[in-house]
Amino acid sequence: MESKNRSILLVSRPKGMPIQDNFKLIEEPLPSIRDGEVLVETIYLSVDPYMRGRMRGIKTYTSPYNLNEVLTGGVVGRIVESKNKRFEIGDIIEGRLGWSDYSVSNGRNIRKVNPNLAPITTALGVVGMPGLTAYFGLLDIGKPKSGETVVVSGAAGAVGTVVGQIAKNKGCRVIGIAGSEEKNEYLEKELGFDATINYKEENLREALKDKCPDGVDIYFDNVGGVVTDHVMYRLNFQARIIVCGQISEYNSEEQAVGPRVQRFLLNCSALMKAFIVSDYSERFSEGYQYLGDWVQQGKLKYRENIIEGLENAPNAFIGLFKGENIGKQLVRVKAE
Amino acid sequence: MESKNRSILLVSRPKGMPIQDNFKLIEEPLPSIRDGEVLVETIYLSVDPYMRGRMRGIKTYTSPYNLNEVLTGGVVGRIVESKNKRFEIGDIIEGRLGWSDYSVSNGRNIRKVNPNLAPITTALGVVGMPGLTAYFGLLDIGKPKSGETVVVSGAAGAVGTVVGQIAKNKGCRVIGIAGSEEKNEYLEKELGFDATINYKEENLREALKDKCPDGVDIYFDNVGGVVTDHVMYRLNFQARIIVCGQISEYNSEEQAVGPRVQRFLLNCSALMKAFIVSDYSERFSEGYQYLGDWVQQGKLKYRENIIEGLENAPNAFIGLFKGENIGKQLVRVKAE
Repeated sequence: MESKNRSILLVSRPKGMPIQDNFKLIEEPLPSIRDGEVLVETIYLSVDPYMRGRMRGIKTYTSPYNLNEVLTGGVVGRIVESKNKRFEIGDIIEGRLGWSDYSVSNGRNIRKVNPNLAPITTALGVVGMPGLTAYFGLLDIGKPKSGETVVVSGAAGAVGTVVGQIAKNKGCRVIGIAGSEEKNEYLEKELGFDATINYKEENLREALKDKCPDGVDIYFDNVGGVVTDHVMYRLNFQARIIVCGQISEYNSEEQAVGPRVQRFLLNCSALMKAFIVSDYSERFSEGYQYLGDWVQQGKLKYRENIIEGLENAPNAFIGLFKGENIGKQLVRVKAE
Repeated sequence: MESKNRSILLVSRPKGMPIQDNFKLIEEPLPSIRDGEVLVETIYLSVDPYMRGRMRGIKTYTSPYNLNEVLTGGVVGRIVESKNKRFEIGDIIEGRLGWSDYSVSNGRNIRKVNPNLAPITTALGVVGMPGLTAYFGLLDIGKPKSGETVVVSGAAGAVGTVVGQIAKNKGCRVIGIAGSEEKNEYLEKELGFDATINYKEENLREALKDKCPDGVDIYFDNVGGVVTDHVMYRLNFQARIIVCGQISEYNSEEQAVGPRVQRFLLNCSALMKAFIVSDYSERFSEGYQYLGDWVQQGKLKYRENIIEGLENAPNAFIGLFKGENIGKQLVRVKAE
């Protein structure tokens, strides 16, 4: 074990796109633990778009990050010291912990991960928060029926890839919207999406007409903005719009303006429902079970992109907003 | 019975606010009926905001009105000839029929109204389509719980007045938004709304903060536009927005633009659901039953504004968009 503990602080609130200077790496002595606590050695850190919202300093569904405090997010780690009888040294856990080499937990914000069921990285992706987000959003709000058309924006991301595959497993026609040919090739050839649209290259209105000849029954929205505007013209009667993320706007300081959606919704008695995965916290075990089973059965494929080193976590985070990643973006802090 | 039948045609599609020249009164011979049909003498005509959408000539949830055809809408009338064994001469009926002195029906688009239970005008208002709209939108989508705050826009209209009273009956705190002191006085003093806002006179943002100190749990939206923009800032966690109408935009030829709603919805896991009353057609009898009982029990008050003469129906319709009416706007074509 090291004798020092490195951590990453948020030292200023991003204006627009986050930059390196918003973050700072510090070194402190290794923390000690009290009765009931464990010391966790970070193996993987997760970077997720929702964190941008917490950097804003405005209270929304999650409390904002405080300045000059250690950032927190999804972590997979190893118990290296335990004064909590539920955890033993060597256990692999997942939870919301600090962007640090080592974190202290009282055991309530972490869960054990079985490394024999699936690679432990999946606890931050396909069988973790992004997987649950896809699972509950699509199934509980979208209620997909076989034969329906499902459109997913941000389709190549950690959530979008799972949404599309679950929808395929439910017998839907699935159209993914993403920003590169490489992503779209992956979605169609490896994940079995029926069609894809490159929003940076194609005329969205025409492409949607072409690829959704029967209209859109479910729109799982990770991005918002202009992409979403165009989907509105293709909604079917009783369409369901799942508002999961609006990554196209997260770096904007101003209130975004666009075509009002209400008339589109009225034209087809549509539903638009926003959610955050914690709305379903009482059903997480159900979600983990299904997602884990589907991964084992080969019904849910995934891709991970891993950057090495705690010091590169800010870079990995910034990369989310450049559309660089396919699947889940992780940071490896320590060897497994 | 007259020997002539007057009717009102739509002869041109309104651009912006409808005008007299969009309509034309014609005279034709009295229609004759065949086996299975009835001849209905129109007593009251209903003018409703949704009709503006059908004048647009674009297919939405209802088919558009054709030019140079008789307009259709809600009618309460009397059977004056019958070759249908379900109806007798003298029966009072309600249905979607022509803007005419007399209409022919095959009996499938009309229902009998019992004139002993309530004034027959209510079959077009509080115990008719507007009442059902309020009933299903508020109860099925909004699911109000006692103690919650309900905001209604277009609060003094045929739908809004019923929404507010049902919400009060469910134990909610009800705030109505309307456009005159006369309307707001009626809502507060006669219908028991807890508070009202005059959107033409007050600073909406401040007034909403002041009158909804605990935020907004349910927003029943009849108007859209700027009024709705301001409500978005006051939504509570798991708020429900019922998109019933967008009367502020019905006369606009251009796609309305405004603050994007998705971020507001995401901040509180909110639901936005649009609907049209016919989505609930299988449950209409339930709705009529409850609404009728509440009227008889004095739990649901209503006001009607009646204009005399078929020839004035276009004026009555145009008046809807000038915010002139309190409660239900009707046209009396014939004495009861």
